[in-house]
Amino acid sequence: MRHISFTTDYGSSDAFVAICHGVALRTAPGVRIIDVTHLVPLADVRRGAAVLADAVPYLPDGTVHVAVVDPGVGTSRRAVAVEAPQGLLVGPDNGLLLPAAHALGGATAAVELTDSTPARTFHGRDLFMPAAARLASGTSLAALGPSVDVSTLLRLPSPVTRSGPGWLEAEVRSVDRFGSLQLAATAADLASLGPSVQVLDAAQQAIVVARGETFGDVPHGALVLLVDSTGRPALAVNQGSATARLGVGAGEVVRLSAV
Amino acid sequence: MRHISFTTDYGSSDAFVAICHGVALRTAPGVRIIDVTHLVPLADVRRGAAVLADAVPYLPDGTVHVAVVDPGVGTSRRAVAVEAPQGLLVGPDNGLLLPAAHALGGATAAVELTDSTPARTFHGRDLFMPAAARLASGTSLAALGPSVDVSTLLRLPSPVTRSGPGWLEAEVRSVDRFGSLQLAATAADLASLGPSVQVLDAAQQAIVVARGETFGDVPHGALVLLVDSTGRPALAVNQGSATARLGVGAGEVVRLSAV
Amino acid sequence: MRHISFTTDYGSSDAFVAICHGVALRTAPGVRIIDVTHLVPLADVRRGAAVLADAVPYLPDGTVHVAVVDPGVGTSRRAVAVEAPQGLLVGPDNGLLLPAAHALGGATAAVELTDSTPARTFHGRDLFMPAAARLASGTSLAALGPSVDVSTLLRLPSPVTRSGPGWLEAEVRSVDRFGSLQLAATAADLASLGPSVQVLDAAQQAIVVARGETFGDVPHGALVLLVDSTGRPALAVNQGSATARLGVGAGEVVRLSAV
Repeated sequence: MRHISFTTDYGSSDAFVAICHGVALRTAPGVRIIDVTHLVPLADVRRGAAVLADAVPYLPDGTVHVAVVDPGVGTSRRAVAVEAPQGLLVGPDNGLLLPAAHALGGATAAVELTDSTPARTFHGRDLFMPAAARLASGTSLAALGPSVDVSTLLRLPSPVTRSGPGWLEAEVRSVDRFGSLQLAATAADLASLGPSVQVLDAAQQAIVVARGETFGDVPHGALVLLVDSTGRPALAVNQGSATARLGVGAGEVVRLSAV
Repeated sequence: MRHISFTTDYGSSDAFVAICHGVALRTAPGVRIIDVTHLVPLADVRRGAAVLADAVPYLPDGTVHVAVVDPGVGTSRRAVAVEAPQGLLVGPDNGLLLPAAHALGGATAAVELTDSTPARTFHGRDLFMPAAARLASGTSLAALGPSVDVSTLLRLPSPVTRSGPGWLEAEVRSVDRFGSLQLAATAADLASLGPSVQVLDAAQQAIVVARGETFGDVPHGALVLLVDSTGRPALAVNQGSATARLGVGAGEVVRLSAV
Repeated sequence: MRHISFTTDYGSSDAFVAICHGVALRTAPGVRIIDVTHLVPLADVRRGAAVLADAVPYLPDGTVHVAVVDPGVGTSRRAVAVEAPQGLLVGPDNGLLLPAAHALGGATAAVELTDSTPARTFHGRDLFMPAAARLASGTSLAALGPSVDVSTLLRLPSPVTRSGPGWLEAEVRSVDRFGSLQLAATAADLASLGPSVQVLDAAQQAIVVARGETFGDVPHGALVLLVDSTGRPALAVNQGSATARLGVGAGEVVRLSAV
């Protein structure tokens, strides 16, 4: 039996999540469900895609990852299941799944899940989780619906990343609970910046940022530029919030430059 | 072994929920616990009853559903376990359990759980979860306490629903994370309204509402009247919040009328 | 296979918690993880220690308790695993674990976990959970690292408690979701106060408080002084919030006196 992981914007106050757990357990008794988060901001597909891609490399091999951030539920957007070397993904074809598929080795096959349910507002219950439970129980991908060319799966626009000698502009990929700004860039992109770096805050004031390897490498309340646990550059404040300090949030572009 | 479901107003910040999980696991090692939600607003028995009733039909048959929204803990209100054809319920006799019992086929038997514990403030730990763990392990309902006439179980007042030719007034049964207003009515109650409907907002302004089957049937930001995933009429805003748009919340009465 | 419990300040919106679950499941397939809470306020070691100590006595014997509230992650603070008669604890050596160790019978042995990972910001994933999964799978404490003298483990300062004839001053150990103020004192400390008690609010106004055994022993909205489910004195408001009523929060000192 494969595991199921579950990522949504359903929140934690309603019965939605438990209903989906119940549906999975009725189809696949004994299946283990790992909740990633249900607090993706409403309809924020980009954030859902980021948190899902962050999680999947660490979940057991072969897990069926169900993700539902789906403002187009019940409309013409496709519902799909996607296969990758290290796992399966089930959800709407709106860009949510592909970054995770990439993290699992890249999409190698996909099928469309046909909506045969009367209700059109709760595909987590009626379409995605039933499909995932069948996959977890050993049903083949091909048995779930007609094949889809993986190159036609909807892809989110790539985040902004620009760099030149001594500077880097990168979109904030996500902001975590600690208020750290994770940049859509790589550790290698930091190389040309050198040891002393400044960042522009929302008011276009330049602030010098120390380089470090962890939060405690700088004094309490100070900004630090480090490589985070996913391998990306991140701006953090030791026991504080970089998003609050800089006035910058997810989707905005940060400019770093050598001093 | 039966499953246990768990619904409370304990929140997610304290140890209360984990303590109850631990108590269940000590009595019934290996039991599987499905958390419905622990974010029922404090002491909001009506909301707790609604979310529990929403969840139970989708959880595995025979599950023991523990629910604790219990402002009268430790007072003279009874603690009960209730049997229904498709599951068991354990909690305070304050109206919380009966809508779920109805959704499970109707209460067929009940017993009173006698409080033999010194502490009078945490019956989830000391009374309800121990009883549920025994039921999950195979103990019979009758072994838990003296029989209670199910007709004496406390019932919440029925929500307001009134209708006439071309109009419907219905209480808002619940508001979900998406801000959708679910009405305490049935899909059939919408029949006489016809295709064009208006609703009064909190300022008594009439707003025309499109009929649809899902959120995306109307433009981004527009109101839609649909039948939700529980089969009830609901007012929603595509990628927005109907409760914010209309200024109406749970327990208030909404008037819909044909235009 | 032992169970794992998991207590952090990671929040519920990011992938951190699921990543740690995945790491545990990869090392110890089938291990059961009991989440205590992930909503410890950021870097609030004292609060984390309190909620962990509250939970552990009720979790299954022998559970491996992982706790991560760790503002010093990646710095020179030690990472440790601690053995107690009724369970094991894994986390930073910053005071977080010892109250729980005490609740499990007292620390009898400890080892230092050596950080051999490149990343220095996510020891829950890279150090603590892998160690816990090994312990859960049967690896001995001694196999995890060099022995540490338990008397050298960092201990949080004891909370303030002072008393005299007819008065008691005690620090607020924690505030729960219901807004109840739990005092760092014992039920016995209340003995000299007698049946009629007053408390000073934040504005130094004296408010008379009824004694009771549960919330419903006083009228709706009234203050009550009771012994809570952990055996400690607590100030609560029946269906209201004592922290809001009195303007007092965790870490502040409350003065109770006989009237």
